[in-house]
Amino acid sequence: MRTVPVVQEILKANDQIAAENRERFDRAGVRVVNVMASPGAGKTSLILETARRLDEIRTGVIEGDVAGTVDAERIAARGLPVVQINTGGGCHLDAAMVRSALPELPLEVLDLLLIENVGNLICPASYKLGADLNLVVGSVPEGDDKPFKYPGMFACADVVVLNKNDLADIFEFRHAEYERGIRMVNREAPIFRVSCRTGEGLEAWVAWLRERLAAGAAAGAAG
Amino acid sequence: MRTVPVVQEILKANDQIAAENRERFDRAGVRVVNVMASPGAGKTSLILETARRLDEIRTGVIEGDVAGTVDAERIAARGLPVVQINTGGGCHLDAAMVRSALPELPLEVLDLLLIENVGNLICPASYKLGADLNLVVGSVPEGDDKPFKYPGMFACADVVVLNKNDLADIFEFRHAEYERGIRMVNREAPIFRVSCRTGEGLEAWVAWLRERLAAGAAAGAAG
Repeated sequence: MRTVPVVQEILKANDQIAAENRERFDRAGVRVVNVMASPGAGKTSLILETARRLDEIRTGVIEGDVAGTVDAERIAARGLPVVQINTGGGCHLDAAMVRSALPELPLEVLDLLLIENVGNLICPASYKLGADLNLVVGSVPEGDDKPFKYPGMFACADVVVLNKNDLADIFEFRHAEYERGIRMVNREAPIFRVSCRTGEGLEAWVAWLRERLAAGAAAGAAG
Repeated sequence: MRTVPVVQEILKANDQIAAENRERFDRAGVRVVNVMASPGAGKTSLILETARRLDEIRTGVIEGDVAGTVDAERIAARGLPVVQINTGGGCHLDAAMVRSALPELPLEVLDLLLIENVGNLICPASYKLGADLNLVVGSVPEGDDKPFKYPGMFACADVVVLNKNDLADIFEFRHAEYERGIRMVNREAPIFRVSCRTGEGLEAWVAWLRERLAAGAAAGAAG
């Protein structure tokens, strides 16, 4: 009976810091996407492919990992501003971790910040970071049953991008079943099928994101 | 500063219940494997393929999921005794959840209990369940960098089974890099390459497990 109140306090404190992060992002005119997925779904690949296609939009990245800098190195190699957060065993990013990374980023010259969360389909859904958009990256090899098993993650998604779709036949992936699972907890999030390996579907996803960023920037200017 | 002591208390309480589970398993003569992996690595498929090959060994299953009974239904369809635990948002099984499932299983007639943990490469590593063996199931589509990013999980493994190995070429999976990552945190765990789809490598894995179970049963009888 003791742990639940403590967890709730943590979440409440986290929400407060997330709101402060959000204000800071709004002042700097930066739109922020929280990128969540299982380990190995292709978050880093999608970030790189997205940033490359959004070349008129100045993009920075925060990389969250339990350990290591493998992904941050891939991103730095492409010339994007990037900060690595190592959670040291923690299974999600929280708003304070993101706040601590901000001094290392040139927020004033960025239009977009992509935050790659720790690979985990559960806990990251509970911790707001101050983002405008929650992006859940699915992956065909994981199987079409994931929305049924991890409903919290799919419920919090503003958009789902299903990666490795070029392998749908090999994995006998049932798109209708996957989308039925998502719709059980989320009526609205658009679902894009892409392959970062072949490029399939990326243009449609990036076009949607570009439109959302423009609408968000307008809303930010209005509010 | 407040949360860490609480977490430590939880882990300590968990260890105590895990030890009680272990005693209960030993008295019943049941060997227990804690099966951990990312979402979609193929835990359920490996459990089914393993149980089928161990046909002289009476096997039961505990299925852990955030939500749903998809996997438990697959296992029940094969005629194995199975209990589903839904964590309702929790990102790992703990020893008390396993204890609560035991009255639903015919422990006295089982030789082996396979516990499928929640799909997560982080938190399950911290919660003992009372198992004899920690099995980490890797998966080729996740990429060969996973041991570097999730060292805690690979450090706690007694054995690693890399599934979907038939797709190693498509994913340009570097086995040497994967095994180098594991060896950075774990000098001893054997690593098996298998495919539950093609059957590749399963005999070697099952032969090893059969030997370990026999050795464990002998140790149990001696101790």
